[in-house]
Amino acid sequence: MKDLRPALVQAQQGHLYRRRRVLDSPQQPRLVVEGRPLLSFCSNDYLGLAADPRVSKAFHRGLEHWGSGSGSAHLVSGHSRAHHALEEELADFTGRERALLFSSGYLANLAVVTSLCGRGDTVIQDKLDHASLIDAARLSGAGLKRYAHNDMAAARQRLAAARGEVLLAVDGVFSMDGDLAPLPELADLASQHGAWLMVDDAHGLGVLGAGGRGSLAHFGLDADHAPVLMGTLGKAFGTAGAFVAGSEALIETLIQKARSYIFTTALPAALAEATRASLEILRAEEWRRERLASLVARFRRGAAEMGFKLSASATPVQPLIAGRAQTALAWSRLLEEQGILVTAIRPPTVPKGSARLRITFSAAHEDRDLDQLLAALESLKP
Amino acid sequence: MKDLRPALVQAQQGHLYRRRRVLDSPQQPRLVVEGRPLLSFCSNDYLGLAADPRVSKAFHRGLEHWGSGSGSAHLVSGHSRAHHALEEELADFTGRERALLFSSGYLANLAVVTSLCGRGDTVIQDKLDHASLIDAARLSGAGLKRYAHNDMAAARQRLAAARGEVLLAVDGVFSMDGDLAPLPELADLASQHGAWLMVDDAHGLGVLGAGGRGSLAHFGLDADHAPVLMGTLGKAFGTAGAFVAGSEALIETLIQKARSYIFTTALPAALAEATRASLEILRAEEWRRERLASLVARFRRGAAEMGFKLSASATPVQPLIAGRAQTALAWSRLLEEQGILVTAIRPPTVPKGSARLRITFSAAHEDRDLDQLLAALESLKP
Ligand SMILES: Cc1ncc(COP(=O)(O)O)c(C=O)c1O
Ligand SMILES: Cc1ncc(COP(=O)(O)O)c(C=O)c1O
Repeated sequence: MKDLRPALVQAQQGHLYRRRRVLDSPQQPRLVVEGRPLLSFCSNDYLGLAADPRVSKAFHRGLEHWGSGSGSAHLVSGHSRAHHALEEELADFTGRERALLFSSGYLANLAVVTSLCGRGDTVIQDKLDHASLIDAARLSGAGLKRYAHNDMAAARQRLAAARGEVLLAVDGVFSMDGDLAPLPELADLASQHGAWLMVDDAHGLGVLGAGGRGSLAHFGLDADHAPVLMGTLGKAFGTAGAFVAGSEALIETLIQKARSYIFTTALPAALAEATRASLEILRAEEWRRERLASLVARFRRGAAEMGFKLSASATPVQPLIAGRAQTALAWSRLLEEQGILVTAIRPPTVPKGSARLRITFSAAHEDRDLDQLLAALESLKP
Repeated sequence: MKDLRPALVQAQQGHLYRRRRVLDSPQQPRLVVEGRPLLSFCSNDYLGLAADPRVSKAFHRGLEHWGSGSGSAHLVSGHSRAHHALEEELADFTGRERALLFSSGYLANLAVVTSLCGRGDTVIQDKLDHASLIDAARLSGAGLKRYAHNDMAAARQRLAAARGEVLLAVDGVFSMDGDLAPLPELADLASQHGAWLMVDDAHGLGVLGAGGRGSLAHFGLDADHAPVLMGTLGKAFGTAGAFVAGSEALIETLIQKARSYIFTTALPAALAEATRASLEILRAEEWRRERLASLVARFRRGAAEMGFKLSASATPVQPLIAGRAQTALAWSRLLEEQGILVTAIRPPTVPKGSARLRITFSAAHEDRDLDQLLAALESLKP
């Protein structure tokens, strides 16, 4: 048994040590963190639904009926009418034959990749894809080939050289950069090469496209272009868990084969009831997406005027690249002194030399919140 | 893109197709399944806490304060006072320095194995270890060496031949067989060979040992013998999620390195409040464990009298081995005709030729429930 402490000390010295902050208040932009009021710009609660009383009300009703736990896996006796209804509603929302619930997006990504690919097959990914997609490819035993971020020539090369069953898996919205994958080009490439296209739309669903139907809808694409869609429920939906949507055969294949589906306890049915309520709100309240778009536009104008170099993101994920880990930490600290919480994101979460503040917006932010953020950013001005 | 349907048809022909049942009622033994009343003997809600009103009440209170979602990962802004308090209480319960919450046991197992071992290292496991431990070893890149079930001579051989960092990971109670790992012998072996011993106590915590402290406590062992303990919260605790307990350095290492911790959304804080309540009940109400023990003893006497070959299990997991998948399905159907729900467990979940009914007991089962089960088993009598 090796001594684990030297590596911890080394991480501290490299300014890479991760510390958790303890929240005393719910996920509204106005938090209390370790006793101190802070205005948050780092949650993924994009639509402000994590503290919506209608979602909580459905959750309460769910608890009354279902109790607190599911007791077992979906395939044993953990699959309730509430889970089932949510799956049907998610299938309808995403325009697919079926949807299947998972306990997290991480587990959903493992499920898809390991069920479709194995030894002798090829998984092709963008270099900035989410960690769970990369881990999924590793676990599958397939060859993992990555291409430079959004480089379609490189993606084409990878596809041309691929063997076996080929899965092209990509974030719809890149989690740390906020930019979109060029989904129409990727869909063309996948269909030319007979590859599955899988879109992880963790940060697009609810936020982009008509009715919040995500980054595929944003580009006018559908199930024919991307037969596998993964969505998470802990971000715009404001609850927890995830789902995969696709054809009848895809979903039945996951039920038969996916170890991260079969060998894990179902989330509580009451949580599924809460998510059903948030899906209904998310579909109906277009103003939340409009509100987000206007916050993002105002932020980008203000930050550009101050001389910040902005990324190519039109989504609520707006990174400010600091470069060194130490600088990102110092920026985060400067904001916190002014009452604003934005966690520093450092390697290995982002590539070396690109430590950053990942600023995110929520429909629950008010204009004065954005004013406060922009005023505080003056102190980091280049 | 291969056609997924032929493999589905093949599974159907081999009696290996998995179908989900939709529950209309909560996880009490008396269920309504697709409109039909059924008495369940297949949930992991061993203590009957999944529908306990005190747990639900704490959940309700949690929702009032925390809302429905955590909004982000623990390391960003998803770590609440409720999560933190639960971690402290689980550390205290398990007699360890620290505990760390995960969204599922599957993710917790991935976290431990991939953080402690990598290429050049060795993970040694019992052949009947849970799927998530096996997947964890695969993902880690370490060599995976398995030994025949509970065969200590084989385990010793594996340890003697191991290279690099060595992790000996084992289920405390085997999930499909209900028998215990010989933890005192395994602890000796691990210490002789300088290996980490990790115990996945998904089915032991809450059920075995003084105060429900699990299979290690059952054998009088502690953190010195098994420095890594994994426990799940969706079984005896009646909620959802999981935790790892261990030394300060172990937990900090997981926080820094474990991708299945860092890159996933925290479960709702309200759920952590519910689990705090269930932990308190679980520690205090010894009668639940006594009740379980007496149900299990009565079941074993009754089933043995009928001529069933029982496994070496003294836990609430009591398999009846059917052999062929088809036979296990037929048994399950026969029980269901008599109002009893026990899902058939078939390969690849269990080894080929050992398809079975996995009968489980709960402190919420009444004597007349057991009478009904034993009467129904008459129809399967060898
Ligand atoms: C792109 C992407 N995929 C998958 C996940 C994992 O989803 P979950 O948090 O539900 O595990 C996340 C975030 O956590 C993500 O950003
Ligand atoms: C032994 C064992 N380990 C781990 C797990 C996974 O835990 P979870 O259901 O929380 O993912 C289970 C059951 O699901 C199990 O039986």
